[in-house]
Amino acid sequence: MRMLSELEDGEGMDSVLRTLARDLDVLLGGDRVITDPVRLRTYECDGLTNHRATPGIVVLPDSAEQVAGVVRECVRAGVPYVARGSGTGLSGGALPRTDGVLIVTSRMRRILEIDIPNQRAVVEPGVINLDVTRAVRADGYYFAPDPSSQQICSVGGNVAENSGGAHCLKYGFTAHHVLACEVVTPDGEIVELAADGPGYDLLGVFVGAEGTLGITTKITVRLTRVPQTVQTLLAAFESIEAGGRAVSAIIGAGVVPAAIEMMDALSIEAAEAAVNCAYPPGAGAVLIVELDGPEPEVAAQFADVERLCRDAGAFEIRIAADDAERALIWKGRKSAFAAVGRISPAYIVQDGVIPRTALPQVLARIDALSAESGVRVANVFHAGDGNLHPLVLFDDAEPGAAERAEEVSGAILDLCIEHGGSITGEHGVGVDKARYMPRMFTEADLDTMQMVRCGFDPGGLCNPGKVFPTPRLCGEVPGVRKGPHPFEGKADLF
Amino acid sequence: MRMLSELEDGEGMDSVLRTLARDLDVLLGGDRVITDPVRLRTYECDGLTNHRATPGIVVLPDSAEQVAGVVRECVRAGVPYVARGSGTGLSGGALPRTDGVLIVTSRMRRILEIDIPNQRAVVEPGVINLDVTRAVRADGYYFAPDPSSQQICSVGGNVAENSGGAHCLKYGFTAHHVLACEVVTPDGEIVELAADGPGYDLLGVFVGAEGTLGITTKITVRLTRVPQTVQTLLAAFESIEAGGRAVSAIIGAGVVPAAIEMMDALSIEAAEAAVNCAYPPGAGAVLIVELDGPEPEVAAQFADVERLCRDAGAFEIRIAADDAERALIWKGRKSAFAAVGRISPAYIVQDGVIPRTALPQVLARIDALSAESGVRVANVFHAGDGNLHPLVLFDDAEPGAAERAEEVSGAILDLCIEHGGSITGEHGVGVDKARYMPRMFTEADLDTMQMVRCGFDPGGLCNPGKVFPTPRLCGEVPGVRKGPHPFEGKADLF
Repeated sequence: MRMLSELEDGEGMDSVLRTLARDLDVLLGGDRVITDPVRLRTYECDGLTNHRATPGIVVLPDSAEQVAGVVRECVRAGVPYVARGSGTGLSGGALPRTDGVLIVTSRMRRILEIDIPNQRAVVEPGVINLDVTRAVRADGYYFAPDPSSQQICSVGGNVAENSGGAHCLKYGFTAHHVLACEVVTPDGEIVELAADGPGYDLLGVFVGAEGTLGITTKITVRLTRVPQTVQTLLAAFESIEAGGRAVSAIIGAGVVPAAIEMMDALSIEAAEAAVNCAYPPGAGAVLIVELDGPEPEVAAQFADVERLCRDAGAFEIRIAADDAERALIWKGRKSAFAAVGRISPAYIVQDGVIPRTALPQVLARIDALSAESGVRVANVFHAGDGNLHPLVLFDDAEPGAAERAEEVSGAILDLCIEHGGSITGEHGVGVDKARYMPRMFTEADLDTMQMVRCGFDPGGLCNPGKVFPTPRLCGEVPGVRKGPHPFEGKADLF
Repeated sequence: MRMLSELEDGEGMDSVLRTLARDLDVLLGGDRVITDPVRLRTYECDGLTNHRATPGIVVLPDSAEQVAGVVRECVRAGVPYVARGSGTGLSGGALPRTDGVLIVTSRMRRILEIDIPNQRAVVEPGVINLDVTRAVRADGYYFAPDPSSQQICSVGGNVAENSGGAHCLKYGFTAHHVLACEVVTPDGEIVELAADGPGYDLLGVFVGAEGTLGITTKITVRLTRVPQTVQTLLAAFESIEAGGRAVSAIIGAGVVPAAIEMMDALSIEAAEAAVNCAYPPGAGAVLIVELDGPEPEVAAQFADVERLCRDAGAFEIRIAADDAERALIWKGRKSAFAAVGRISPAYIVQDGVIPRTALPQVLARIDALSAESGVRVANVFHAGDGNLHPLVLFDDAEPGAAERAEEVSGAILDLCIEHGGSITGEHGVGVDKARYMPRMFTEADLDTMQMVRCGFDPGGLCNPGKVFPTPRLCGEVPGVRKGPHPFEGKADLF
C-alpha cells in the first residue's frame, strides 16, 4: 500500500482537496485515489475534446458502498464531484472539475446476473455495452442500445446519457432497455429506482439526467431476442431530396425499419477516403435500410421497401446476401464521423432533431447556410427519426475558422428548434449545449427541471455546470412559492 | 350569472373556503364553481367507492389559464386541491378533500389537433379515451391504451394513473403513448413537458404521478396504426396451471401477443351468469390470446400459439372468424369485474404484479389463502405481464366479512412483493395502497420520491394524502442534507 504522503504529490491542490484526498484514501484503501498530475490529466476530457479540465482528484471505487462513501465525503467537504464511465460522451457530461472529484466506474465491471427466462441481466456501471450482448448472444439475446461507441462505452454512461444508436428507431433509447438502477443519491444514500412500479417513475427521470441526479452503481437491463432474420439494403440516389422521399414513403407505408440511415455526398466522399466502402459512384445520397423480425414479415416488407426506394428514384440498390455483405454496407456509415478527419483537419459533430416530415426543408436550409458561409457541412443522419448529425468542417490552422464553424453549427440547432425539433437527439446537453437550452425551453420549463435537481441535490455538488444554462442556488427558483409558505400552520392537511 | 351570495349556500363551509369560493367565482365566472352540498356530493368518490369525502368546493374550468388561476388561488389561501377527470380510477387518486377544492376537467374536452403524418393528436384532459380513437379511426389509427373504462375514462386521468389495459403487454402503458403534456405546476405556472427532449424527462415522472405533481391541461398523444390483421383465440384448460404452462410456452417462443388474458373457474362462472358468454363448459381456466400485426407474421405465429395451447393441454380452442366472434370472446373477459356482482354481494378488485414465471406458485398460494380463510377469490389477469386482478368476494351484510376480505386482499399483495413483484400493475396507489408502499420500498427509496414531490410542491397542497404512506413536511426529509448546507459559501461552484 502506498504511503499517504504520496497523495500530496498533486501540485497546486488546495488544502480542502488535499485533506479530502487523504480521507478518500483511508476510506477506499488500495490504489484507488489518484492525485498525480500526469495521471489526472488522462481524465481531462470525454469525447467532447474542445472542453478540458484536469480533475482535482480521481477515485476508482469498486462497489456501490465505496461510491456512496466518496459522495458522502465530498458532501461533507463541500467539494463537487462528477461521475465518468468510459468517457466517450460527446457533450462533455463527464468533463471533470479542477476543484472536484472525478468518480470513475471502470473497476465496476462485473456482470452480476443473467436471467434468460425473465429476459434481463444485472450489470455494474463500468460494464462495456457490447459485453452485455457478448454474454447473452449464445442464448439468442442481445442488449439493444447500440451507440457507435458500443465497443468501448459503458452501460453506466449509456444510462447517464440515455444513449441511442442506429437501431433506436425501432428499439428505442437506453431508457427503454433499463428496468431498474441502484443509485447513489447526491446525499450518499443507496436507493433502488425501478420502472413500472408504484409511486413516481424516478428511473425515467434518472436515465438521461447526465449524471446530475446521482450515480448508478447497478443496472438491470432488458435483453432483447435476436430477430429471426435481418435484411439490409443500400440505395443510392442522385440527391438528398430523393433519398428523403424514399424515407417518407417507407415510414408512411407503416414499415418500422430497425434502422434507416442517410449519408450525403460529402460524408460518402469521406467514408470512401477512409475505408473504401465502395458505395455506388456518383451518389448524391445513400440510404441504408435494415429490417428485422420474423421471416415472413421481413420478406414481405423488404420487397415493399425496395420498390419504394426505386419509386423515389434510387438508381442503384444493393441487397446484402449475408453478414459479410451487411457489414460492408454498414462500414461506410459506421466510419463516417472518424472518416471526416480524412477530408478536413477539424470538425464539429452536431446532433439535432427535427420532425421527420421537415427533413427536406431543413436539409435545404443547411445547404444554404453552408453556401453562404463557405463552411462545408457533411450530413449523416438517422433519417427515420429525424436525428441529424451534421459534421461541420473547418481548418483549425485558419484564423477565425473555428468560430465560423461554431456559428454554422449553432445556426443548425436554431433550424431544428424553428422546425419544432430538439437541440440534441442522443448526445446530451452536457457543457456543450447548456447555452442553447433557453432557446428551446421557457424559464418556467427550466425552473421545473431545476426544482427536481434541487430536490435530489440541494447542495448542487453532483455534476454541477452541466445541462442548465444558468444554474441557480436551490431556493432561488422563483414562483409563487417565494411568497409566504402556503403550508404554514397546516400540518394537519395530509 | 348567479349572484355571488348563492355561493354561501354551502352549509358548514369554513370561512377560508367561503372566501376562496367567492374569489374563484370572480376568477372563473359563469357556472364554474359548485358549493351546493347536493351537487358536491356527486363528486364524493371515484371508482374506489369505499373511500368517500364530499369536496369543499368543486370547480369546472375550461382552459389551462383557468386551471392555473384556480391553483394560484388555492396556494394563496393555503387550501389543498385535487384534480379529477371522469372519476373512474380504482385507487382513490381523485378522492376529494372536505377542506379543499376539486378541479374537474370535464369541460376541457376538445380535440385540438390531429396530425396524421406525424402520428399524433393534441387533446384536452377531459377528452374521453375512446373519442381519440373515434376521431382518427377513419385514417387507420387508434389510441392504444385501453383500460376497461375506456368508453368513459378521460385522457387526463389516463395520464395521472399511467393507465394500461388488456393490450399493454405489446403496446405499453399510457406513458408510452404520451409525447408531451402542458402542465399547471403546483405553484400555478404553465409548463410544457416533452418526451425525448434534452434535460430531464419530467414527462416520465409526471405521467403516473397520480395527480400529485400538477395538473395536465393539454396532452399530445401518439397515434398507433391499426394493425393489418387481428387474430383471436379462446383456449379452455382444465386448470389454471395448464393455462399458465401455455402462457409460458407462448412467451418463451418469442411471440409477443397483443394480449393474453386468463380467467379462472369462478370468474368464468360470474361472466356466464352476467353475459352468457358461452365459454366451454367445465373449464378450470380460459385463456384469450390475441395477435395483431402484418398478415404473414400473424398467420405464422397464430398457428404456433394454437399448437402451444394444445401441447399445454387445451381441451377446446375457438378461433374468432370475424369481429363479431372476437367481440363474443372478449365479452366474458370485459364484463368479468362487474359480473362478479352476480355471484357475490360485494367484492374487492385487487391489482398486483408478479414476474410472469412465478404465476403458477402465486396462484397456488392464492388458492391456499382462499381455502384457509373461506374467502372466495376469482382470478382474472393479464397473464402475459403477470398483472393479477384477484377479485376478493364477501358478503357485506355478514359481520367481519369485509375485514376478512381486506386481510386476504392484503395478503395477496404480500405474495406479490415476496415474489419480486409490485403492489399495483395499473390501478395506482392512491389512498388505497399508500400503506403498502413501505413493504415495497425502503425509507430511502420513499424519501427520494418525496424529494421530487417537495421539489414540485413544497407547500404540499397538490393532491395531498395520496401515494405516500407517511407524508412529511418538505424540509423534513432526512439525509446528509440535514447537516450544514454543503453549498454554503460556494456560489462559484457552478
